[in-house]
Amino acid sequence: MQIAIHLYDKFTALDAIGPYQTLSHLPGADVVFVAREAGPVLDDHRTLSLTAHRSFAEVPRPDVLVVVGSGTPDLGDETALAWLRAADAHTTWTASVCTGSLLLGAAGLLKGRRATSHWTALDRLRDFGAEPVDERVVFDGKYVTGAGVSAGIDMGLSLAGRIGGDRHAQAVQLMLQYAPEPPYDAGSPDTAPADLVARFRDEAAAS
Amino acid sequence: MQIAIHLYDKFTALDAIGPYQTLSHLPGADVVFVAREAGPVLDDHRTLSLTAHRSFAEVPRPDVLVVVGSGTPDLGDETALAWLRAADAHTTWTASVCTGSLLLGAAGLLKGRRATSHWTALDRLRDFGAEPVDERVVFDGKYVTGAGVSAGIDMGLSLAGRIGGDRHAQAVQLMLQYAPEPPYDAGSPDTAPADLVARFRDEAAAS
Repeated sequence: MQIAIHLYDKFTALDAIGPYQTLSHLPGADVVFVAREAGPVLDDHRTLSLTAHRSFAEVPRPDVLVVVGSGTPDLGDETALAWLRAADAHTTWTASVCTGSLLLGAAGLLKGRRATSHWTALDRLRDFGAEPVDERVVFDGKYVTGAGVSAGIDMGLSLAGRIGGDRHAQAVQLMLQYAPEPPYDAGSPDTAPADLVARFRDEAAAS
Repeated sequence: MQIAIHLYDKFTALDAIGPYQTLSHLPGADVVFVAREAGPVLDDHRTLSLTAHRSFAEVPRPDVLVVVGSGTPDLGDETALAWLRAADAHTTWTASVCTGSLLLGAAGLLKGRRATSHWTALDRLRDFGAEPVDERVVFDGKYVTGAGVSAGIDMGLSLAGRIGGDRHAQAVQLMLQYAPEPPYDAGSPDTAPADLVARFRDEAAAS
């Protein structure tokens, strides 16, 4: 089972590592990081460098496709969108984290589908004919989308359960000691200080 | 403020990325991944390759030191332990995730201190004169240790709050949409199926 995680310049690191860490224990999983070209890919802080194992051309038919997010996903990158479309035609599961769902949308893959995204980007899913759903993980057929950044862990674990069964996913959760205790209650626009929510909404609207 | 994240062969990816993603937004933060030698470092799945920016010798005095874990940390790696000791002598904060605390212990830095680790490794902290504490994040003076793998997010966010203030950490949490919703309740040995807990304890004891 080939699991392709799509990387691109200025991706958000945790968007990629959440699904990676939760899906890579699946029996028979062959995880490959894929980018336009194989080689190092820099994250949005211009600091972290993760190696893409393969180019788009080398991974034409992954079984599972995972598209990660960025603060500035390039929704006009036709080379990437064409690869997403072609790869998706053969997948068993197509997944995204954060604004990765906007890339799936721009590729035309979410028309008429329920999907989620980073909370600042949720409404933009309508631009691509998708129905925004304010939930942490949203399944619609073979498509599974996760909310912002850290939701990739919940998305990955949920998908690991669908593929490998509940027992497998529980074992992964225990191994990762994923019993989160955030030190603050500011992880959602519903609970965070209102001025922080307003500031990020403004920044997202201006970008 | 130089934040050094220590990488080594067979590290666990999420151990490194949790602190990275939560600490790298601190004002003035200069995050460097550090290893014995600069260059690519392979994770415990032998799949993910993260680039270390600098060698030990090039980062003698970080302000913040973060030591990540592995299923098989090399507690006899004297070169690494010597660097941890020397770097720690100048830090404002010394942190670990998962079995990274065993490395801090092996370096002699946790004597008489309260600390945590991956749940399968918690008792081993006693071997180094530390007091095991079954909590998600444990502060003792300038030392902060996190429990297994995913606890690096909680540890990093807690430390971001100590360094940058609560408001800063809340903004980071909101940006990362860190309002976790694990799809199962198996993230702790207290809640996971008992046979899974027993299996992992046996595996850890045999390794």
